[in-house]
Order: sequence, then structure tokens, then C-alpha cells
Amino acid sequence: MKILIINGPNLNMLGKRDPEKYGSFSLDDLQNNILSEYPEHEFEFYQSNIEGEIVSKIQNSQDNFDGLIINAGGYTHTSIAIKDALEIIEIPKIEVHLSHLSNREDFRQVMLTTKSVNGYISGFKENGYLAAIYLLQKLQ
Amino acid sequence: MKILIINGPNLNMLGKRDPEKYGSFSLDDLQNNILSEYPEHEFEFYQSNIEGEIVSKIQNSQDNFDGLIINAGGYTHTSIAIKDALEIIEIPKIEVHLSHLSNREDFRQVMLTTKSVNGYISGFKENGYLAAIYLLQKLQ
Amino acid sequence: MKILIINGPNLNMLGKRDPEKYGSFSLDDLQNNILSEYPEHEFEFYQSNIEGEIVSKIQNSQDNFDGLIINAGGYTHTSIAIKDALEIIEIPKIEVHLSHLSNREDFRQVMLTTKSVNGYISGFKENGYLAAIYLLQKLQ
Amino acid sequence: MKILIINGPNLNMLGKRDPEKYGSFSLDDLQNNILSEYPEHEFEFYQSNIEGEIVSKIQNSQDNFDGLIINAGGYTHTSIAIKDALEIIEIPKIEVHLSHLSNREDFRQVMLTTKSVNGYISGFKENGYLAAIYLLQKLQ
Amino acid sequence: MKILIINGPNLNMLGKRDPEKYGSFSLDDLQNNILSEYPEHEFEFYQSNIEGEIVSKIQNSQDNFDGLIINAGGYTHTSIAIKDALEIIEIPKIEVHLSHLSNREDFRQVMLTTKSVNGYISGFKENGYLAAIYLLQKLQ
Amino acid sequence: MKILIINGPNLNMLGKRDPEKYGSFSLDDLQNNILSEYPEHEFEFYQSNIEGEIVSKIQNSQDNFDGLIINAGGYTHTSIAIKDALEIIEIPKIEVHLSHLSNREDFRQVMLTTKSVNGYISGFKENGYLAAIYLLQKLQ
Amino acid sequence: MKILIINGPNLNMLGKRDPEKYGSFSLDDLQNNILSEYPEHEFEFYQSNIEGEIVSKIQNSQDNFDGLIINAGGYTHTSIAIKDALEIIEIPKIEVHLSHLSNREDFRQVMLTTKSVNGYISGFKENGYLAAIYLLQKLQ
Amino acid sequence: MKILIINGPNLNMLGKRDPEKYGSFSLDDLQNNILSEYPEHEFEFYQSNIEGEIVSKIQNSQDNFDGLIINAGGYTHTSIAIKDALEIIEIPKIEVHLSHLSNREDFRQVMLTTKSVNGYISGFKENGYLAAIYLLQKLQ
Amino acid sequence: MKILIINGPNLNMLGKRDPEKYGSFSLDDLQNNILSEYPEHEFEFYQSNIEGEIVSKIQNSQDNFDGLIINAGGYTHTSIAIKDALEIIEIPKIEVHLSHLSNREDFRQVMLTTKSVNGYISGFKENGYLAAIYLLQKLQ
Amino acid sequence: MKILIINGPNLNMLGKRDPEKYGSFSLDDLQNNILSEYPEHEFEFYQSNIEGEIVSKIQNSQDNFDGLIINAGGYTHTSIAIKDALEIIEIPKIEVHLSHLSNREDFRQVMLTTKSVNGYISGFKENGYLAAIYLLQKLQ
Amino acid sequence: MKILIINGPNLNMLGKRDPEKYGSFSLDDLQNNILSEYPEHEFEFYQSNIEGEIVSKIQNSQDNFDGLIINAGGYTHTSIAIKDALEIIEIPKIEVHLSHLSNREDFRQVMLTTKSVNGYISGFKENGYLAAIYLLQKLQ
Amino acid sequence: MKILIINGPNLNMLGKRDPEKYGSFSLDDLQNNILSEYPEHEFEFYQSNIEGEIVSKIQNSQDNFDGLIINAGGYTHTSIAIKDALEIIEIPKIEVHLSHLSNREDFRQVMLTTKSVNGYISGFKENGYLAAIYLLQKLQ
Repeated sequence: MKILIINGPNLNMLGKRDPEKYGSFSLDDLQNNILSEYPEHEFEFYQSNIEGEIVSKIQNSQDNFDGLIINAGGYTHTSIAIKDALEIIEIPKIEVHLSHLSNREDFRQVMLTTKSVNGYISGFKENGYLAAIYLLQKLQ
Repeated sequence: MKILIINGPNLNMLGKRDPEKYGSFSLDDLQNNILSEYPEHEFEFYQSNIEGEIVSKIQNSQDNFDGLIINAGGYTHTSIAIKDALEIIEIPKIEVHLSHLSNREDFRQVMLTTKSVNGYISGFKENGYLAAIYLLQKLQ
Repeated sequence: MKILIINGPNLNMLGKRDPEKYGSFSLDDLQNNILSEYPEHEFEFYQSNIEGEIVSKIQNSQDNFDGLIINAGGYTHTSIAIKDALEIIEIPKIEVHLSHLSNREDFRQVMLTTKSVNGYISGFKENGYLAAIYLLQKLQ
Repeated sequence: MKILIINGPNLNMLGKRDPEKYGSFSLDDLQNNILSEYPEHEFEFYQSNIEGEIVSKIQNSQDNFDGLIINAGGYTHTSIAIKDALEIIEIPKIEVHLSHLSNREDFRQVMLTTKSVNGYISGFKENGYLAAIYLLQKLQ
Repeated sequence: MKILIINGPNLNMLGKRDPEKYGSFSLDDLQNNILSEYPEHEFEFYQSNIEGEIVSKIQNSQDNFDGLIINAGGYTHTSIAIKDALEIIEIPKIEVHLSHLSNREDFRQVMLTTKSVNGYISGFKENGYLAAIYLLQKLQ
Repeated sequence: MKILIINGPNLNMLGKRDPEKYGSFSLDDLQNNILSEYPEHEFEFYQSNIEGEIVSKIQNSQDNFDGLIINAGGYTHTSIAIKDALEIIEIPKIEVHLSHLSNREDFRQVMLTTKSVNGYISGFKENGYLAAIYLLQKLQ
Repeated sequence: MKILIINGPNLNMLGKRDPEKYGSFSLDDLQNNILSEYPEHEFEFYQSNIEGEIVSKIQNSQDNFDGLIINAGGYTHTSIAIKDALEIIEIPKIEVHLSHLSNREDFRQVMLTTKSVNGYISGFKENGYLAAIYLLQKLQ
Repeated sequence: MKILIINGPNLNMLGKRDPEKYGSFSLDDLQNNILSEYPEHEFEFYQSNIEGEIVSKIQNSQDNFDGLIINAGGYTHTSIAIKDALEIIEIPKIEVHLSHLSNREDFRQVMLTTKSVNGYISGFKENGYLAAIYLLQKLQ
Repeated sequence: MKILIINGPNLNMLGKRDPEKYGSFSLDDLQNNILSEYPEHEFEFYQSNIEGEIVSKIQNSQDNFDGLIINAGGYTHTSIAIKDALEIIEIPKIEVHLSHLSNREDFRQVMLTTKSVNGYISGFKENGYLAAIYLLQKLQ
Repeated sequence: MKILIINGPNLNMLGKRDPEKYGSFSLDDLQNNILSEYPEHEFEFYQSNIEGEIVSKIQNSQDNFDGLIINAGGYTHTSIAIKDALEIIEIPKIEVHLSHLSNREDFRQVMLTTKSVNGYISGFKENGYLAAIYLLQKLQ
Repeated sequence: MKILIINGPNLNMLGKRDPEKYGSFSLDDLQNNILSEYPEHEFEFYQSNIEGEIVSKIQNSQDNFDGLIINAGGYTHTSIAIKDALEIIEIPKIEVHLSHLSNREDFRQVMLTTKSVNGYISGFKENGYLAAIYLLQKLQ
Repeated sequence: MKILIINGPNLNMLGKRDPEKYGSFSLDDLQNNILSEYPEHEFEFYQSNIEGEIVSKIQNSQDNFDGLIINAGGYTHTSIAIKDALEIIEIPKIEVHLSHLSNREDFRQVMLTTKSVNGYISGFKENGYLAAIYLLQKLQ
């Protein structure tokens, strides 16, 4: 499988953020962990802080990937544009969050992008990405 | 008249999106339709998925255009920045929506950018743009 | 085309009302303006202050007109009965408002009748009616 | 028994409206059905699209009828005037709705007139009226 | 002074309604009381159950009266049309309610028509009308 | 017809509860009244205070009954589990309430189970059950 | 009659406050106006900026006055203590406001003290007090 | 590992419920699927429609299991009692939902039990249980 | 006096739960404490995790006890059924909570069962039960 | 023990207020009742209608008393200042209400001062104070 | 410049309150700090726990001071009376808060008095007062 | 000190926007004013209309500056991404707004970024920036 993993704003700061919520690993650690756990798949890792660039990346994924995993960070709760882009493409897509959102602030309870994916996983830190790949295999 | 037509996020995907709501024409079709219906005016067509680029484009329109038509897509409902930019410029400005928003999701009922235009038109697919130009003529 | 134009409560007072919101023309001026702009169509102009009479007029329009334009005035925001009547008839129907509603009082933000028309236009004073006729032509 | 049956706005359009919600019978069919099911009672059937006329009709029912059945249509949700009129008269009064309101739009969930009747019945199409008469017999 | 007194829906039923809230006098008693207390003024008494008729009556009062007293009954809380009509005319206008509204149901706490009058008086039963005339004298 | 009548929590206390709202008859009286009014049908009467037992009873009704009448008492307003069970079975099902709920506390205005029945009847005390059976006959 | 007139916080500043809302007269002017209009009654004028002092004054009025007129200023909207004090005493009591509250800020729409008076009058500036005395005469 | 899997109300009906949301497999199929995918672990499968029984089962899991997977069905959204029970025990616990809750009714958006688990997974039908076991392995 | 003390869901776990909120004593300790403090009264201690069983227990208390003390745990906030059962019985009844609810989560601020008792006590851990018995003595 | 008992606005009117809610005893009766029931403790009784005086009294209690009992009357629901003062002092403090607040008006459901005490008691009229002293003994 | 600095309820307790939010200095320390930092200005320091006294102090500041700095403590969120008093006077006025309010309780997010000052500063403990004086200099 | 001053969307338009709210100076004027008032510090001025660029700029400030001043413009109210970025860095950070936000539109009352700074200042136009630098000195 060819899998696109998109990380949104501030996820390039992993390892420098509150470790109780986000874990103590960096984005590189997270990506190396994925590569060593699933050597049989091909991955593209993409990170951007700009909402519109993430929209464009999703739009281009349709013909180039077998599955998409997205952690849209803060845009999860406000971006209708990312939600609409996810709705347009038709490959399997899974949303992952590192922290357990249901115990956090009110403004993180509105989840817009979530409405346009197959399902989501939250609260398991870096293992959430591994479980998402496990589930992409099941969705083939 | 010199008219600027701004289309926001995902409107570059016209023709690939739910045709019942957005019609089956592409953004190019829409623009050619405008050109053939109104050959007597000069148009600039601008599309961007990036909120900040649309803000900049609006800011620059003041001295260069006689009127502005905007379909801010998903940003219509969340962008105070675009709303503020529209408020600053003083040429006639009209908001257009392809679909009939009052029958859609709750999160599309909050319309921020609409507060800073002269008026708006929704529900008539590509014809909404044509009616907006018709009205810009009347506003001169 | 045979077109019915319905104006609701207080629109018979045009010209005596706050001109910044509603313009300085009377209802007669508005109707003459339509007739001189679109001499090729046949119009019936109907005004009533009574909600139930507007309901009856809409019910009877089905077989007698090719299109309907309605400005339900204050009933726009409260009349489920007019909304239901509009839903029953199947000719093209467009809602027009003289003032730009999105900048007015809270109780004018709930738009019930709007849910049962093809689309709507607001904020362009008397020109809104002209644009509605322009669009009825496109909808044929 | 002498029974008054009041039908509100758009109920004169029965048979021309969405049959899944309202059934495929006309208002005449509904009335004939009542007459043949309950030949032993005397009925007056009244329909109006005008809120104030319904108010007047209710006010006059006190001394002339043994019971009142009302389907106030769209006015059910907005008319304090009809609610108040029902509260004043003291004969048994039952509210009927053809469709099952609790599965419909939000603005149909506020039921004002219902507060001033003995009880109500919804979701059984024309049979709701028959059950209302059955219950008026029990309330004597 | 020439004074128009408008009473809305169900006020023709005074004397037959809950006397603790509305008093035990009829509408005729109320009008005779006014005439004997203020023989020096000329009055027109108008009552209607129909919202649109009240709208029309208000529209026509501008040139024919020196002051207007209105008790819009149940329409006080729901009628944008009456509110708009009151806003258009420019003679002194006072709203009166028989009962003390602030102790009644929630749906009677929203007061739309009140926004378009000079002031209002509530809770003094028939004496509220007398005080309104007293105040119209002061407003000349 | 074979009819299942389910009564929820506290309905075993009928006759000991506020008689103005619930009537002065006991649950036995209510059941005997049904049996004598409709000797031609077969009934099973079921009462439980336990939410999960009512869920199980509904699940088992599909193949054993021609119709179901339910008064879920206090669970009407809080039980998604009963609502879901009702949605699964496909025999005609009617909800009955003894008291007129629309005049009671706020927390009794949210009606969850009602969304999964054919229709409902409220405010007629024990006669509501009789009318429900009358309507089950019509629904065959 | 012996009448107590209580004015709450900031009413000692009359004449220095926004004259469009409060008039251009001072508190002394207002009191002299009352004395010259109603020489036949005895008045005590009381003003305090302190909520608890107003509570005490109301508590002491029971046996010493035939009627009470109160303008609680900003405490109208927040003081449960003044509301409770008014509820305890049993002489006729009328609330007056100089400005027309229904057109002002949201936080002035909640009226707590109003629930414990016989009725209220708002929007007539100093004439509101005169009308309140006129009505106290009627309430004897 | 010894794992307890709790299924709440109506999950015993799997295979008979809307297959688009819940899949077409039965609860037995689901359990056999788990056993064949993870033969190396020991499982106890528990299903109940009774809220209090689920509370008791959770309370007893502390010393007997290495992990807990729960799908509380309709109780997810209303049961403070289950939420409190989950909070008390300290083994790893994961919540699973078959359907993608974020696209369903409003009353399913309030998730109480979710606040007391390590994380949750929704939208992957029976595969959600498999991913939960995969993650329990990671949490050891 | 003969006193029934009902403890709801999760109160059998006392001593194993967050001691800052609930204290470090077990349910047995709590009961022994009561027995040694009040040897002159007769007690029945009842605990259940099942909502409907608590409803039944309350229904049966009417003729068998002189007073009832209830701590309904999580059901305090959601159970209309327990609230209704408490309303039916007429012996003195007091609600007790171990923790100080007004400082806890939002969903614990809605207190339904509290509406049907004589009074309540919260925040004093096991001493709350002792104070409740002290007060039952006063209520005789 | 040395105990301070603070009573807020209108509690000096006990015996003259609605006896069903507040009992028929005066504030003197209440205080004598406490003295005869607990002769072993020393009491200071303080009553004020002025919010700021109560704030000052609480501030001064820290070093002079072993416990504080407060019934802040109407200020319970509106005074952040009293809430903050209670939070600052560190002796045991208990809130008492004579009436059962959970069955009263909406504006009495917000309890601010309650957040800063150890616990509270409501609904037991004068006995609530006795139980509070009983509990202060337990808190030593 | 002559500057009035008003501190509201509980600010006389500085140094005895939660130091993380309010700092560890006393009100005297704060005032001495101001005097040594700005020896070139004349100051009056005023503190009161009584809302109405603060209202009176503000009313009297108009002609006696060149600027006003206020920290209304808990009254910031509830006092319309202080808000109105601030609105009446016309010297420059600045609101200061020691703690960073936007991270505190919900009931501290409503800021009434803030609407009537020139601007405000929060979160900088005693330095906020110094910055306010710095800004008063700029506003001359 | 080395200080970073970030200005968000539309602040590059200063001088062309409503001068009553924002002042009549340009962004260049504002920066020159800072430089001449505080020649002893080193400044970097940064302006961007793009949310993601501001996020990146904040992320990079940690090791390069002694303090940060931000006016996030319209993003203040909607950007979780900027809020999160501010939370991550640990140098002193102050938020400034030119206009007095508490008197503006409702959608400007939700302040997300404010939660992640040390404190904020609003309503003093360009002087707000000067006061922020004054406070950064105090925070060293």
C-alpha cells in the first residue's frame, strides 16, 4: 500500500510540547517508528502549518495513494475547507489524534474534519498512527 | 467596468463535486460563461485555497477595480480576517453562493463575510455570478 | 413569461419608511420600474398585509404563472404557513429583500420562508426585483 | 354530539402535498370519511388560511358545539392568539396532526396551541381525526 | 385630541377570560370607562383578531390621529409586521397590557411590538388605558 | 389481534399518584377497562421499573404480536436504549401518555422514545390506551 | 395618600447623564414637578446608591406609606435582594423607568425587581412618575 | 492477556439492525472473529441491556483482567453511573463504537463514558474491536 | 424510628474511590458508624446499581418506614423514574451527597431527584448521613 | 466553639414572609432556638442587608471564630464578592438555606457563594441551622 | 496629574489571598510601589467592599481628578450600577485586573464595567497599575 | 532586550481603516513611534496575513527573543493553531489590541489566543504597544 500521512499545524513541534498530552517523541521519531513497524508499505509524510496547503495536498491524493491518515491539529475544529476536501476524495481516510480530546477544552469538542473520514482514533499517542495503518489494511 | 471575481477554497474543484448542489460545470466553464455573457466588461478571475492570500487580494482591489464579486466558500462562515478586509475597501462588492445555503448544514448558517458586502445572492448556481454582474452595473 | 410578484406587510408603505434601508421609491415606482425594464413579460403585482391571504395567493399560483417572486416582509421570519405554501407549489420561485438582512436585528436572521424557494437575493433595494426576473429567465 | 372541526393553513391543499407525510387523500375525502364513520354525530367543517379568522371561529364555538377538534397546521408552532382563544372556551378540545411531528424540523417542535387543549394525537394521518371523535365521546 | 385605541386578538372576549389576570369588565365597559373619564377627547375604538388588519389600521393612523394606544394581545410577542408598521408612523404611540406580563409564561417575555412605541404600561388592568391617555396629554 | 401493552416505571403506582394528572384508577382497573372494551383482541400486559427489561421485552415482541402500545413513563425522556429497541422492531407501535405532557416540567419536553413509534397520544388518561387500540385496528 | 418614592443608583446624577435617554432635568426638578402636580398628597423622596440601604427602606415602608414608587436603576436587573424585599411588603407598589428599556442593551432586558410589583411604566421620562401617582390613586 | 469485552444495550441484536451503520454480522460472528484473529489472548464476552448490571461488571473487572474494551451502546451518552464505574477501575480501558458517531444524531454527540477511558475508536465496524486489542497490547 | 437508607450506583465501591471527594471509609464503615451513633433507631441499608430496583425499593417504603435517606449517586442527575417514585411516597425523605457537588462537573449540576425530597445535604462525607438522621428526628 | 452566624438581606423579616417557604418564626426565635439547643457554644449573630458589609464581616472572622454559618439570602446567587471573601478565610464554613431552593425560580438555581464553603444544607427551615452546628462539631 | 485609584471588594485582603493569581504584596505595598515609581503625580487611594460607595466615589471624581484607575474586583462582572457611573463621568478611566481573567471561571468572563472605560489591562499583577498610570500620561 | 512584535491580518492596512477604532496612523508610523520611544531595545517587526506563517514565526521566537508582543487581528478569535504555538514558547508574551474589544461585535468576544499569553491590553490604540514594552521590562 501507498499511504499519505498528513500532520497539521504545530505537529512539527512534537517533543517540545506538553509531554503528558502529546508524548515525548519528535515528529521524526514518530515517522521512524511507523517505518520500522510497517516496512512492507510505502509512506509519504507531509506536514504544513498552512490550511490551504493541506487542502491542496488532500485534493492531489486521490490518484496517488491507497489510503490517507490525517491529524489536522487545531484545524480539526475550524476548517470547513479541509472537511470539504476530504469529502471530495474517495480513498480510505482515517483521522488520528495524539491526545484524548474528550477530556480537553470545549473548543476542541467541535470536530469538523471528522465528519468526512471513515473513522477516527484518539488518545493513544503515537500508537494511534500504528492502529490507523492496521485499520487501513482491513479496509482494503 | 473592471471587475474582480474571487473564488475561495475548493471552488477549483467545480465539476468534481456533488453536482446537485454545485452544478456540473468546471471553474473554467463558469468563467467562459461570464466572458461570453458580458463581453463589454474586463474581468480578473482569482482562485485560492489560502485564506491569507484572499485577504491580500481584497486589500489590493481598492484602486484597481470598479467592483468585486466574491464566493469565499468555506471561509464565508469562519473568516473574520476576510470580513475585515472586505470592510476596508470601498468599491461595490457582492457575495455569491452556488448552492442554496439556507437548506444546508447548521455550520453554514453563520455568515461572517456577508456582513461586509452590499448584498448577496444564493442558490442559482453559475447564474448567480451573472446576476451579480447585472447588479454591479446597477450600482454604478 | 407570466410572473407573479407578491409583496408582504408594510411594503405598501415604501417611500414613507427609513430610506437608508428601503430606498426612497414607492411601491408604484418599483412596479413601473419593473414594467419599463422588462416590457416583454406579463406581471401580476399583489400586496397584502394579511398572512393567510398571501398563503392563499401562493396556493393559487401553481397553474397560472411561470414564476413567482416574493418579498414576505416581516412574515419571512415567522410564517411557517407561507413556508409550507411555497413548498407545495412547483413553479420557479425567488425570494427578494430590499435591505441587507445580515446586518439587521437578531429576529430578522431566522428565515423560514427562504427554505422553500430556489434561491434568494438581498441588499440591492429595488434592483433585487430586476435581478430576480433576470434569474427567472435563466431558470426556464 | 355537535362537533366543530377546524383545519388551518394549507390543509385545503391535502392530496397535493408530500403524500408520505400527509397521505394522498383530499380534505373532502377526509371529511367524507368522518361522516361515514360517525353518522350519529353532527359536524361543521371549517378551513381557513387566516390566523385571525380561526381565532374568531374558536371564540364563537363555546355555546354552539359539544366538542372541538383542531389541526392548526403551521400556526400550531407560532400562534399565541389561537392558543389564547382555545384557553378561553370551555368545551372539550383535541389537537390532531396528520404527520408525526417529533421526527420533523426543529421549528415544528415548539407547540404553542397544544398547551390549551385537553390532549393531542399525532402521526396517524386521517385516522387521527377519527380517534379524536372516539375520544370526544369518552370525554362527555 | 383625537386618539385611536387598537385592541388585538381575544380582547373582544374580555369578561369571559381569567378575571385575575384580565379583570371582570367587558371591552364595552372598558371603552365606556374611558369615555366617561376623558370626555374632552375624541376616540376611535378598533378591535381585530387579524394581524394584517391591525397592520393596515396602524398604517392609516398617521394623518388621522394625534395619538395611538395599542394592546396587541398575543401578537405583541410574535408580530414583526405590527412592529414594522408602528415604526413607520410618527404620532405618539403607547403600548398597554392588562396583565403583569413579567410574571407570566416564557413565550410572553419576548416583546417585539414594544420596540417601536414611545413607552409602555403593564399590570394595571383597565386603568392602564386611562394612564396611557394621561401620558398622551403630556407628550403633546 | 395480539397486542402487547408495556407500562414503564411508576405506572404500577397508579391510583396512589397525583389524580389530577394520572387519574384515580389503578393499573388493574386500567387493564380491566381495556379487556371489557375490546373483548375481541388478545392482550399481554407488561410492567417493569427496569429500563433494560423493557428493552428486552420490546426486542422479543417482533414475532409474537401484531401491535405494541408503550407508556415508558420517566424513561420516555432519557432512554436512548428503549428508543433504539423500538426502532428495530417493525410491528405497528403507538406511544401513550396519561397526562398532558406539554403543560408539565421542562425535563419532560424532550421525548426520545417518541421518535421511534408510528404516532402518539397524550392527555386523555386511561382513554388514551383505548384510542391507541382503536388506531392499531386502523393500521392493520 | 402618603407616598414613598425610591430612586436607586446614579439617579442622583440626572441632568448630567445622556439626555436623550434620561431627559435634561435634575432629580430636584423631578421632585418639584411631582410636588406641584400633586399638591394633595404627602411624599417622601429617597435616593441611595447602596443596594442594601434600598432593601432596608422598602422593609420599613409597610406601615408608614399608602403606596410605593421605585426606580431601582441598574439594580433592577441584578438584585434578588430588592426583589425579595418588595415581595414581602403589601402596599401598592409601582416600578418606573425613565428610558425605554426594551430598546437598550441585553443586560437591561432581565428585570428581576419587576416581578414583585403591581405593574410598571417605562419610556416616558419624568412623566412616568406622574402616571405612577395617577395609578396609585386608582389602586386605592 | 486476559481481556473483558462488554457490549451494552441492543448489541445482542447485531445483524438485525441497519447494516449500513452496524454491519451485517451478528454478535457471535464478531466474537468468533476476535478469537480467530487473536488466539494468543483469553477473552470474556459480556452483553447486557441493563445499565446497573454493566456497572457491576466493570466494578468486578479490576483484579480479574488485564484490559477492558467497552461499547456501551445507547448508555454511552446518558450513563453517569457507567462513567463513574470506569473511572474507579485502573486497568487499561478502550471504548469502541461500530458506527461513525460524528455523523449521527445530536443526542449521540454527548459522550459521557468516553471521559473515563484511555482512548476510543469509532467508525470501523467489527474491525474497531480488533484495533482495540492491537492497542491494548501496546499499552502493556 | 424506622429508617431506610438507599445508596445508588458505585457507592458499594466506597474506600476504593478518590478519597479526597468520597472519604476513605467503606460502605460497611459508613453503616457501622450510623449504628453506633444512633443505637436508638432501626435501620435498613439498601444498595443497588440498577435504577429500576431503586425505583421499586422507594415504592415499597411508604408503609414500612418513618423516614428515607437517599444518595442516588450518578442517577441523581438523570433519573426521572427515581424522581417520580420519590414524589409518590409521603414519608419524610432527605437526599445526601458525600462530595460537594457544586464544585464538580457540569453534568452533576442538574439535580432531578432533589426536586422530590424535603431537603438535601452535600459536602460533609459520611457525616452528611448522620446530619440527615438528626434532621429526620426534627421532622417527626 | 466560637461560631459566627451571618444572615443576609431580608432575613431580618422572618415571620413576615411566606411561611410555607420560610417558616413562621422570627429571626429572634431562630436565634433563641439555637442558644437553647446548643448552650455549650458561644455565638455571634450578625444580620445585614448590605453586600459589602457582609464581605467585611467575613474577612474579619478568620482569627476570631472556630466556624462560620452563612445564609446569604438573595446574594447567594449574585455575589462574586461574598464568594471571594469566603474563599479567602480558612475556618470551617457551612451554607444554610431555609427553603428548598431546587424547587424555586430559575434565578435561584445559580449558586455562587456555595462554591466557597465546605458544604451546604437546604430545605429544613430553622432546623438547617441546628444541623449546621451539629456538623461544625464533626468538622473539628 | 491628580489620579484616583479605586480598589473594590476583597482587594484589602491582598497578600492573604492565593499568591499565584494575585501576587504576595499587600494593598499598602502596592500603593507605596506606585508612589515611589511616580513621585511626580498626586494620588488618592480608595478601597471599599460596598458597591454603592464605589458608585458614589466615581460620581464625585469628575471635577476633582485628571484620571481614574479602577479595579472593581468581583463587582466587575455583576455591577450595572458601577458601569453606569463610569459612563457618566468624562475623565480618562482605565480598568486594571491583577490576575489574567481569561483563564479563570466562566462567571468572571462577563465584564460589565469594562464597557464604560477607555481600555483595560489584565494579568500583570501590581505592574498593571503602573502601566495604567503610564497610559494616563499618554491620554492627556 | 530583543523584542519581536507580530501584527496579524489587515494590520498592514492601518491608516486606511475606520480611524475611530484603529487610529489614523499607519503601521510604519506605529513602528517609528516605538523606535523613538524605546531606543534602548532591539526590535523585529513582523506582519503577515497568513495564519500558518504567524504560527511558524512564533515557533521560531523561543531562542531569539526576550519578549513577544502580538496583535493577532481577526485570528485572535478563531485560531487554535496560533493559540497552541503561543502556549509552546516560554518567553514573556503580551497581547495588544488597538480598539476596545469589549464594545464590539459578539464574534470578537471569544478570545482564543489570549489564553496563552501573560496578559493583555486593549483600547489604547498605538499606546497599547508602548505599554506592552513598558511591561516587558517589568517582567524581566
